[in-house]
Amino acid sequence: MIKIILLGAGNVGHHLYNAFNKTSQIDLSQWYCRDSRTILYDNPNTEIINDLSKIKNADVYIICVSDSYIGKLSNQINISGKLVVHTSGSIDYTEINNKNRRGIFYPLQTFSKNKKLDISKVPICIESEKTQDLILLEDLSKKIGCKPYKINFEQRKKIHLAAIFSNNFANHMFTIAKEILDDENLDFNILKPLIDETVDKIHKLDPENAQTGPAIRKNNEIITNHIKSLNNDDYKKLYVLMTKLIQEKHGK
Amino acid sequence: MIKIILLGAGNVGHHLYNAFNKTSQIDLSQWYCRDSRTILYDNPNTEIINDLSKIKNADVYIICVSDSYIGKLSNQINISGKLVVHTSGSIDYTEINNKNRRGIFYPLQTFSKNKKLDISKVPICIESEKTQDLILLEDLSKKIGCKPYKINFEQRKKIHLAAIFSNNFANHMFTIAKEILDDENLDFNILKPLIDETVDKIHKLDPENAQTGPAIRKNNEIITNHIKSLNNDDYKKLYVLMTKLIQEKHGK
Repeated sequence: MIKIILLGAGNVGHHLYNAFNKTSQIDLSQWYCRDSRTILYDNPNTEIINDLSKIKNADVYIICVSDSYIGKLSNQINISGKLVVHTSGSIDYTEINNKNRRGIFYPLQTFSKNKKLDISKVPICIESEKTQDLILLEDLSKKIGCKPYKINFEQRKKIHLAAIFSNNFANHMFTIAKEILDDENLDFNILKPLIDETVDKIHKLDPENAQTGPAIRKNNEIITNHIKSLNNDDYKKLYVLMTKLIQEKHGK
Repeated sequence: MIKIILLGAGNVGHHLYNAFNKTSQIDLSQWYCRDSRTILYDNPNTEIINDLSKIKNADVYIICVSDSYIGKLSNQINISGKLVVHTSGSIDYTEINNKNRRGIFYPLQTFSKNKKLDISKVPICIESEKTQDLILLEDLSKKIGCKPYKINFEQRKKIHLAAIFSNNFANHMFTIAKEILDDENLDFNILKPLIDETVDKIHKLDPENAQTGPAIRKNNEIITNHIKSLNNDDYKKLYVLMTKLIQEKHGK
């Protein structure tokens, strides 16, 4: 049984809360958040606190707050010699106060409070200051059904950067596509099978081998017409830049 | 029984060939292609021809060749008064020679010859010069299990443009992400659960409500570090532009 205290109730906090409460092998003892009104649900086995002085003893303290607040929060926790980890993709564990043993428990996923997901499919990037703590973090990952990956800070930053492109930027492409259809009163649902297939393909082909469309075919007439038909100058710029990148990648 | 002749053996041609050959309600009589070496498979019920003078009688002639060749090919077919359609997202049916009745049979999907897909999930955008032909195109769509959508040329061009963003450009984001990981000898597989979830989300949330990441959180420190760490100037430009677009969309 691993005893955990979770600090933070944003998107990541809510999903970890659910994951930890689903297994009897973990005792999620306390959930700290500054404002309990942000909490969408609770479980009688976990005490919700908004006062750091009430923090109890635990095996692992998991900080999942915004990057800029990780250091401050770690200074305010009145514990020492314990394993304290954060869940950020882009901050070193040295940001955590060194009165504790430090580490990383970074779930590589896009979390929205109001969107359920299968936590067992989430890779967890782990790192620890003390070698022996890595075993605990591995064990913790496996107890919620996740695959742990030993990833150092330099690697984690690159993974986070790659995640921005493949999730944040890809999702915003879907947002722009929806906007184009909305402007014509066309239903975004018509695009969903295409988007599903876009992603299904990456399980069978490398993305560079899955590329289709006017850019890779170098169909300049369509490209010119598309750029002309966009009524937002930044969308025009984006279309030109993506076309250039696709053509350069594919040697045309 | 609808009798069909398919002209063209690219990505779209191969997938339509498979779809038409799967149902006994369609007689795929001939498959024309200039170079039969490009054909990956064949079926004894369909005659493969590379000589347009051998073309037989049919109910529908489906041209699936590159946009710039649609008009020329339609001029060369020695038939008249028949229903001839093409499968392009961005060309008017008037491109087809007017000695025949003209129309559109545009499957809204990304097709790669070497990637199987469930054709029944593909929306078909149909349009016809003569009203009565629309019924035949609707019927044809349904016979391969697809949902037909009556879409005019202006709408089809917008749908195609939205498809470029949601498929071509999103897929190239995956390509860039893979490149970032490849450079560090990190396995692209670690990102696949994130990409799966990115797309799963659009079935539950509008994409604008699914947005996460440093741009929407306005985390300037991470954004600056990411831009600095990219070693390709165009990737820097792309990161800056996407961040601006995300922040503008989300009113920050």
